[in-house]
Amino acid sequence: MPMNTPIPSLQDCQTLDQHDPLRALRDLFELPPGVIYLDGNSLGVLPRATPSRVMQAMSQEWGQDLIKSWNTAGWFTLPQRVGDKIARLIGAGPGEVVAADSTSINLFKVLGAALHIAAADAPRKKKIVSERSNFPTDLYIAEALCKERGFTLELVETEGIEAALQSDVAVLMLTHVNYRTGAMHDMAALTAQAHAQGILTVWDLAHSAGAVPVDLQGAQADFAVGCGYKYLNGGPGAPAFVWVHPRHTDRFWQPLAGWWGHAHPFEFTPDYQPAPGITRYQCGTQPILSLTALDCGLDAFLAAEPLGGMDALRRKSLALTGLFIRLVRAHLHGHGLGIATPEEEGLRGSQVSLTRSEGAYAIVQALIARGVIGDFRAGDGGAHADILRFGFTPLYIGYADVWNAVEQLRQVMDSGEWKDARFAHKNAVT
Amino acid sequence: MPMNTPIPSLQDCQTLDQHDPLRALRDLFELPPGVIYLDGNSLGVLPRATPSRVMQAMSQEWGQDLIKSWNTAGWFTLPQRVGDKIARLIGAGPGEVVAADSTSINLFKVLGAALHIAAADAPRKKKIVSERSNFPTDLYIAEALCKERGFTLELVETEGIEAALQSDVAVLMLTHVNYRTGAMHDMAALTAQAHAQGILTVWDLAHSAGAVPVDLQGAQADFAVGCGYKYLNGGPGAPAFVWVHPRHTDRFWQPLAGWWGHAHPFEFTPDYQPAPGITRYQCGTQPILSLTALDCGLDAFLAAEPLGGMDALRRKSLALTGLFIRLVRAHLHGHGLGIATPEEEGLRGSQVSLTRSEGAYAIVQALIARGVIGDFRAGDGGAHADILRFGFTPLYIGYADVWNAVEQLRQVMDSGEWKDARFAHKNAVT
Repeated sequence: MPMNTPIPSLQDCQTLDQHDPLRALRDLFELPPGVIYLDGNSLGVLPRATPSRVMQAMSQEWGQDLIKSWNTAGWFTLPQRVGDKIARLIGAGPGEVVAADSTSINLFKVLGAALHIAAADAPRKKKIVSERSNFPTDLYIAEALCKERGFTLELVETEGIEAALQSDVAVLMLTHVNYRTGAMHDMAALTAQAHAQGILTVWDLAHSAGAVPVDLQGAQADFAVGCGYKYLNGGPGAPAFVWVHPRHTDRFWQPLAGWWGHAHPFEFTPDYQPAPGITRYQCGTQPILSLTALDCGLDAFLAAEPLGGMDALRRKSLALTGLFIRLVRAHLHGHGLGIATPEEEGLRGSQVSLTRSEGAYAIVQALIARGVIGDFRAGDGGAHADILRFGFTPLYIGYADVWNAVEQLRQVMDSGEWKDARFAHKNAVT
Repeated sequence: MPMNTPIPSLQDCQTLDQHDPLRALRDLFELPPGVIYLDGNSLGVLPRATPSRVMQAMSQEWGQDLIKSWNTAGWFTLPQRVGDKIARLIGAGPGEVVAADSTSINLFKVLGAALHIAAADAPRKKKIVSERSNFPTDLYIAEALCKERGFTLELVETEGIEAALQSDVAVLMLTHVNYRTGAMHDMAALTAQAHAQGILTVWDLAHSAGAVPVDLQGAQADFAVGCGYKYLNGGPGAPAFVWVHPRHTDRFWQPLAGWWGHAHPFEFTPDYQPAPGITRYQCGTQPILSLTALDCGLDAFLAAEPLGGMDALRRKSLALTGLFIRLVRAHLHGHGLGIATPEEEGLRGSQVSLTRSEGAYAIVQALIARGVIGDFRAGDGGAHADILRFGFTPLYIGYADVWNAVEQLRQVMDSGEWKDARFAHKNAVT
């Protein structure tokens, strides 16, 4: 939509929804009445198919079939089968992804393996480079591993990444789409620059998988992890996933070498022999009920495939985030709101983050009270301002939702109601 | 029951069930009709309360309340609240246990921390001692950590443990109740012997928690982990748990230092600052649906508290396993079955393992076909024979179940039906 066209009205947005080829996907989800949910980047909504499927896993598979279900219900292979569904969204091949554990733990596995490879191939490389604004748990995991292995974690600002790719660097660890700003890295370009210096790349896809097209194989990336409970709609704390480029998979053990990563777990031998392929990136038994819910969450993406899949979802996502930016500009000037998310489409994930020097938390709370659910992320008092974060999940968010959300924000700001004391108390939300 | 009393009949067993003060607890569980389930040591049965509670977590907490439920439904504190319920079963205090991740991963955390403590306090100690017959994943995790940290894993036979507690040993890592034989270690005595040599103890309670009384504080143990899906009835792959003695908790980071173990996870600071207490043994977001099911599983133990709690459950467990041994002796002599489980009550967990030089797998399959579900564990072709494993969960197994299970085993052996070809094919079950 070029900028010289008129600002879209609610009716324009309703018309866009009526002609949206992806509109039917919304019916796959349970959307609470009276709510515009712009927090699918934190916790995706409930797919309608999930409760009955999980109920079946409880009542029939667990309740009636009990231990047999490891075989008859396919519990054993569920991490791989869910992984194969995720693979389709991130440019990975079948058998290259497993769903297991948490993002933090999977990061420990791949970073641990990457440091082994670096130690073997280039023992003088003793640094991990990452962004200071990376999601903190990634930095914590890297910090702990660096301590254990005698590496150094170097944190740089976004604009300093390329300059930091020096010959003493072993690993570049980045989150593809920034959790605060929604800014997206060019995975292929940064991977190529890293490889030119013999640097391995580890990508966190927590805000990418299911949100933007990802092509790990095309980018020749080395390792990736990601989250099951955000855009993949797997439910609270759903298992995460891990991908390793096949050129690396069989080179080393990952450090969490448990029995589910063993070549023959049910031979119960005292010596560890890693399974071939990505299976060795499993550790222990997975939470089957939560994993079953994640399996259901991914089915919405399978349903999107005949409608154009991730490319069509990306087009709609960009249209939604672009519309939001445009409407905020048009209707909220003079309210001190800035836009932290890149306007260039190639640099933008599936969220828009607004900034304000004060009151960001209370404004989010006032919006929530009106049924528009976004979230707040604190700044650091310096370069990074407080953020009002709005995620746009093209599977279930429509154009009229965007218009109505901005209208509610306008009313919150025009009325000044966000200054009410009841919006001042801080509760943590993830 | 002294050995010179008559062999109990089915009617005797039915009378025991009628007078069993714990009998009502059985009604808390969904037991498939026509099945005698002696595999609760592998996967506990479904509590009747679980499906509706998990359904509520899906439909209301996730589906309707969405992100708010981290606070309003208490998802944030669920690992601690479930941990507090587990603490009551293992002699730990409130706030000393968290439910999270898998047993293997929790073992990595505590073993990683134990090696840090050993390195600080006694840098010449460079060995971990464990049993060769320990559950293999424990050995795999220890093996991987030893490689990383420059330690050696020394595996000994059970009778060699005490002799192995030499001054160069940093950690004694044992599973309290052996997964194959059901033999139970004396935790207090071994811990005292280890401490006399400056050795830290790590206990795996996978086959103990909810099965036998455990007193970690009384034994002055150092670290413990355990499983949520066996005797705790948390469902397939339910999260595991971790306990650290308060004297150690705050001394070091555990190596999986993710954001859920941070002192202030929602301040999103780039530097890791571990939370005080057991909270630092968390890493990433937990699978809330599976954790909710575990929470329900533990409620059966709360219901058992006014009936005598773990002590009463232990008395019944010993009566059940003792009865099984006695009936096998009485009704199955001449069939080549041995008893691998100690007959001395203080040395026995809540299972009985039978041995046979051939056909153990097929006999288990023939029993399963008759609705008596135990499982098979392969021997090593040497000192450890193939095992037919039968778990007795006093929450839901009765005396008549034991009698009927032995009667079915007698018919399987007398008829020779286990030699049928359809019982020869091996499927893995956990």
